[in-house]
Amino acid sequence: MAKAAPVSPLAPKSFPDCPPVEGVRFSTAEAGIRYKGRTDVMLALLDKGTQVAGVFTKSKCPSAPVDWCRAKLAGGKARALVVNSGNANAFTGKNGVSSTKLTAQLAAKATGAPSGEIFLASTGVIGEPLDASKFEGVLGGLVESASPAGLLEAARAIMTTDTFPKVATATCEIGGVEVRINGMAKGAGMIAPDMATMLSFIFTDAPIAADALQAMLSKSVAGSFNSITVDSDTSTSDTLLLFATGAAAKRGAPKIEAASDRRLASFKKALDGLLLDLAQQVVRDGEGCRKFVEIRVEGAASAAAAKRIGLSIANSPLVKTAIAGEDANWGRVVAAVGKAGEKADRDRLAIWFGDFRVAHKGLRDLSYDEAKVSDYMRGEKIDLRVDVGVGASSWTVWTCDLTKEYIAINGDYRS
Amino acid sequence: MAKAAPVSPLAPKSFPDCPPVEGVRFSTAEAGIRYKGRTDVMLALLDKGTQVAGVFTKSKCPSAPVDWCRAKLAGGKARALVVNSGNANAFTGKNGVSSTKLTAQLAAKATGAPSGEIFLASTGVIGEPLDASKFEGVLGGLVESASPAGLLEAARAIMTTDTFPKVATATCEIGGVEVRINGMAKGAGMIAPDMATMLSFIFTDAPIAADALQAMLSKSVAGSFNSITVDSDTSTSDTLLLFATGAAAKRGAPKIEAASDRRLASFKKALDGLLLDLAQQVVRDGEGCRKFVEIRVEGAASAAAAKRIGLSIANSPLVKTAIAGEDANWGRVVAAVGKAGEKADRDRLAIWFGDFRVAHKGLRDLSYDEAKVSDYMRGEKIDLRVDVGVGASSWTVWTCDLTKEYIAINGDYRS
Repeated sequence: MAKAAPVSPLAPKSFPDCPPVEGVRFSTAEAGIRYKGRTDVMLALLDKGTQVAGVFTKSKCPSAPVDWCRAKLAGGKARALVVNSGNANAFTGKNGVSSTKLTAQLAAKATGAPSGEIFLASTGVIGEPLDASKFEGVLGGLVESASPAGLLEAARAIMTTDTFPKVATATCEIGGVEVRINGMAKGAGMIAPDMATMLSFIFTDAPIAADALQAMLSKSVAGSFNSITVDSDTSTSDTLLLFATGAAAKRGAPKIEAASDRRLASFKKALDGLLLDLAQQVVRDGEGCRKFVEIRVEGAASAAAAKRIGLSIANSPLVKTAIAGEDANWGRVVAAVGKAGEKADRDRLAIWFGDFRVAHKGLRDLSYDEAKVSDYMRGEKIDLRVDVGVGASSWTVWTCDLTKEYIAINGDYRS
Repeated sequence: MAKAAPVSPLAPKSFPDCPPVEGVRFSTAEAGIRYKGRTDVMLALLDKGTQVAGVFTKSKCPSAPVDWCRAKLAGGKARALVVNSGNANAFTGKNGVSSTKLTAQLAAKATGAPSGEIFLASTGVIGEPLDASKFEGVLGGLVESASPAGLLEAARAIMTTDTFPKVATATCEIGGVEVRINGMAKGAGMIAPDMATMLSFIFTDAPIAADALQAMLSKSVAGSFNSITVDSDTSTSDTLLLFATGAAAKRGAPKIEAASDRRLASFKKALDGLLLDLAQQVVRDGEGCRKFVEIRVEGAASAAAAKRIGLSIANSPLVKTAIAGEDANWGRVVAAVGKAGEKADRDRLAIWFGDFRVAHKGLRDLSYDEAKVSDYMRGEKIDLRVDVGVGASSWTVWTCDLTKEYIAINGDYRS
């Protein structure tokens, strides 16, 4: 682990106040898995009847906890979530499998829930065996001390190279009854989610069945976690879980079985907003970042093409270093559009930094004011818009710049 | 342009002696396109009857000279090559088209050759208009001063962020007659050739027809220029041209019409070796590089899968920064294998750094000596081998590490 870094300059100025979601309690502990003097395990206790949905990394080499969660998701029920930082339990072979099994058994014993309803996630170094016996000493205390108010501390316990904990909250209504959604995320590097960021956990008291949760989550992730990138490196551990305790039913919220139910309109909107908030917080903690970059691709042949072009720009080291250097280098944007392999009309391409159109009709826009654009590039938020001139579809992705600090953080992470 | 950088530590210790290829003459000049106090234009004059083949970037936003060369290649004949550095003439719209046309006309006038047999390439900043009239003042002198011995100086004139000129030479035989191949390349950043590197020009006196040259070149590039990457950014300007003057026919070399001709065996081998040499020199000048990395993927389902996995590893910022940090971080290699999307058996994966197997059967190889591996990682050449455990196919790719210097070079290139 690198030396403790200062908090990202792009971090939100304050943490949102997140009133508890009924049916969820959190606690954290220092299990000494890798770090010293900080929490590295968090437990979320979920009331009986909690429904669960999840999406995971598409990596062909997923971590052992990802395999575990995928298998347990079929049941649709959850009673506890155990997450550790410091060790990803990825590429750990049979030890990884037995380690997840032992962790779930220990948690089942401590909570009194079936081990098949225990969900697990691990984040940190890849390729080192995870000693699950370290959980044994702390799980009993974690269950005892669990509290509804512990969201922020839980988010802090799962940090690795993150410089700030990431939480978000939203309210909406189902059948006229207010329900709440709280969420947390971690991630700063190895961020190119192919279906979720490294780790994110969402909790709601809405009474929604697992199948409906799953359909909504899979859809919502496309425009949020699957539209961000820090460094193009998809993790082995990406895990996004959504838990619904159903506690709002006691206050009259109707039980919802199908994602197509119209009474979910408000919930869907709130979920989309919350996931996007957390995904953008991950980008705002991108390793070494100084600039938050929103890239909108318009005029594409399809939404998928627009997204692919957007990610090609967002993942281009040359575009990212130019932004770090506060240089509105549209030439590199053109190169990144070109390499995406999607249809684009070079001679109708237009590019804007903020409101400044720097290129149009396939060449430099001679009318723009270089001094004003330079001034804009010194800002913390950079909006880059590209019209590729072939159709009517668009997509938006988010990323950060690439700085020397990224190299420093990742040149000595493991040693 | 960034401040002049010191020569790459991975540069070859000396330049090879490249005896002239009969029928080719070079000259260089200072046209003042962008740089001051250095050459920025090179002319290669080719004897009548020279055959030509070429491969170009697959970018959807190719430069104007790429469009020009593609169109002229159909004729199969070449009389001159004009290359400038400092400006890529890419994303320059109609100005770019007229600029290439004017350059060819000026070169045609100066050389007495038809403008359709003039080949062009430009490298440097993207998105700035290229003032082709600057060639007018120098082309006459270039024709006059052209000399068979000017290969190295020509290679120097086409450099941008390159820290050393890249040349190579080989001899082989056709029908028992010795023929020569000389080549040059430039490139240091924006290197992820999707069919050639930024610019490379190969000259031979072998009497081979354009169609046969084209078939051999397209094949040879797969394992050389198309198997290297510095930063995953494919250029708008990638151009590789192969010129055959046929002068060896005077010494009795047989004229070859078809790539399938068995008498080409020696030539093909020499061409493959020469392209690989130049491609590796480009990697050895990768912006900010300190380590030359050879990545061999074995046990893949197909050669294409092995190549895709290899490039996924080679383009991973986390693998590249780990190597810069002299850390044998196999966990990041696993993540890069996983994100490639190709079949891999996580639990049969094996990874070697040099001769040290650091992981096998899906987990860390406990037998390896960490001190010895650390010592190996301090070397300048790193061999990384991965067996993905699903088949019998393999591929090799080459890259360099990712350092803070890359960020420094690219954070202020244009400004």
